[in-house]
Amino acid sequence: MNSANYLNCPIPSPGDDSRITLAHGEGGRLMRELLRTRLLPSLGMDSSTADDAAWLTSEAAELAFTTDGYVVSPLFFPGGDIGKLAVFGTVNDLAVSGAIPRWLSLGLVIEEGLPWATLAAVLQSAAEAAGIAEVRIVTGDTKVVPRGAADQLFITTAAIGQRMATGSSSDGSPSRPTGPASLRPGDELLVTGSIARHGIAVMAARDAIGIDPVPTSDCALLTPAVAALLAAGVVPRTMRDATRGGVAAVLHEWAAASGVSMRLDQAHIPVDDSVAAVCELLGLDPLHVANEGTMVVAVAAQDCNAALSALRSTAVARGARRIGRVVERQMAAVVIDRGIGSPLPLDEPLGAPLPRIC
Amino acid sequence: MNSANYLNCPIPSPGDDSRITLAHGEGGRLMRELLRTRLLPSLGMDSSTADDAAWLTSEAAELAFTTDGYVVSPLFFPGGDIGKLAVFGTVNDLAVSGAIPRWLSLGLVIEEGLPWATLAAVLQSAAEAAGIAEVRIVTGDTKVVPRGAADQLFITTAAIGQRMATGSSSDGSPSRPTGPASLRPGDELLVTGSIARHGIAVMAARDAIGIDPVPTSDCALLTPAVAALLAAGVVPRTMRDATRGGVAAVLHEWAAASGVSMRLDQAHIPVDDSVAAVCELLGLDPLHVANEGTMVVAVAAQDCNAALSALRSTAVARGARRIGRVVERQMAAVVIDRGIGSPLPLDEPLGAPLPRIC
Repeated sequence: MNSANYLNCPIPSPGDDSRITLAHGEGGRLMRELLRTRLLPSLGMDSSTADDAAWLTSEAAELAFTTDGYVVSPLFFPGGDIGKLAVFGTVNDLAVSGAIPRWLSLGLVIEEGLPWATLAAVLQSAAEAAGIAEVRIVTGDTKVVPRGAADQLFITTAAIGQRMATGSSSDGSPSRPTGPASLRPGDELLVTGSIARHGIAVMAARDAIGIDPVPTSDCALLTPAVAALLAAGVVPRTMRDATRGGVAAVLHEWAAASGVSMRLDQAHIPVDDSVAAVCELLGLDPLHVANEGTMVVAVAAQDCNAALSALRSTAVARGARRIGRVVERQMAAVVIDRGIGSPLPLDEPLGAPLPRIC
Repeated sequence: MNSANYLNCPIPSPGDDSRITLAHGEGGRLMRELLRTRLLPSLGMDSSTADDAAWLTSEAAELAFTTDGYVVSPLFFPGGDIGKLAVFGTVNDLAVSGAIPRWLSLGLVIEEGLPWATLAAVLQSAAEAAGIAEVRIVTGDTKVVPRGAADQLFITTAAIGQRMATGSSSDGSPSRPTGPASLRPGDELLVTGSIARHGIAVMAARDAIGIDPVPTSDCALLTPAVAALLAAGVVPRTMRDATRGGVAAVLHEWAAASGVSMRLDQAHIPVDDSVAAVCELLGLDPLHVANEGTMVVAVAAQDCNAALSALRSTAVARGARRIGRVVERQMAAVVIDRGIGSPLPLDEPLGAPLPRIC
């Protein structure tokens, strides 16, 4: 249980030169020095990378491209920080599309007055995450806005990836996920680990809820889990990292795309005790709470066991479980068997229980 | 002179449902409806594009990749708005690298309470700019932060491009720009149009300075100007759009990269009368003020005339001028001949005269 990370968020003394000023964002000498002495070395980039665009060579003609913005508050939370999140989150969007990441861009919007030490810690963390994900940060941008025009730091990353290799499949099944519209009754629904950890960890960090042990975010790289599935010759119908809106949002989107319903079994849904305790305290359903390293995977029934063992062979998905199945369309798009009486409808989250979770 | 654009920024009545709420950014049903009914149609995208990553097919192995963030205030200004800026600005970074744009990502950070009509106008403008630039917006992300955690709207775009075709060059000169380190004494320095228009237009919009005619931004696409140069067989030493820090920041960066000095001739630097008037009023040097559709081009002396005629054949660079030349290293990295006495050093902007200009 590592909760020390966010407690180390540096506390600067006021009135010193340890903070970023507006002038650092404005293209002059201070900007050039910021790039050369602080940002680029933190990211393991040299100053040639500060040119207008990076030139890359792709061996594959087929490319995946995605972007995500990160506005999480606080910047540091148990199990992660905005830098790690901004790399893994965007790379995970590639992973669930069946792509391995190659190149990443990093756009910073910084509030005037942010301590240098905070920025350095975030960039260090982003660089470490990029190392783990084997993605190169090749281009970036920094804007500084006046105090009060943003809250500390926002990061927007974009990533380019290439299609992952798939193992041989003997039965002529598709070589790539066919998407949520291809879901059909009988398909099995899996999650790769215990749910709701990210949202609850961020909220606990924000409000200093006195739960012991403190919940930690699941913030992690999903690429190995997807690679293991494909290498085992299991091509899921579709996969999705269950971020904002949680598992419930993913299942509602899939139901809307396919015209079928989803039936979950409450007893099979993995939720850590500390997460369940906070959810109960606050009246939240863990199915509605954000994850950042946990995905939902839909597979054909005959692939279920192979999928579970492939997933469980990886550290990030060792807690993979079957949580339900796709059924014929019913009145409700998603229902959950709570163990007593008939299955009940599971609401689609209208908005979110927790703002600025990612 | 089109100054109507920013005056049309919609003024909503308070307390209605015409504003974006926090819940729109949180991955639930409101988010899905926002995407399906508002964002994607505005951008000419269909809802299949709302998947985690977009799949693209590139005919070329060599790719250029770049990102930029936009925090301009106000969102609408004479000659442009944040949507147009976020497309052209990032595409221009590709252009000066010798790349034509293919695919663009669009990340929005929205302050709770932003009027729908404002967002719609910005997205409409971004879509129009993408049409002009012939770049496809293929992936995006939307975050909504609570009131006061951001100022209205920030946009971060990333773009992927491919190398532009070059015309035949008879003399064995390089087929692509060799970069600022290759500058040598005798090279000529060109700008593609009158300078400082963007920074002054934004400031005039912000402070409602009573200048008539009101200065308009040069916000425009530079791709045709670069394409014309290359098609004419002119491969510049290097090019740079003169955004934050203006022409002075570009020349100082180039001088630092090459170890030579730059000598400008004040009489040849194009500045519109209305821009010059505001600069004089505020004690600003136009060479320090941001441009958003004007670049500095360095060419070998023998290419100067061909470069000027190629540039002038395009609408965006029809005002191209020679403004100075590269000289042996002197005490000062950049000097300017003001027409009386010896040339004077031109300061590198330390920060910027104007925050949140782009």
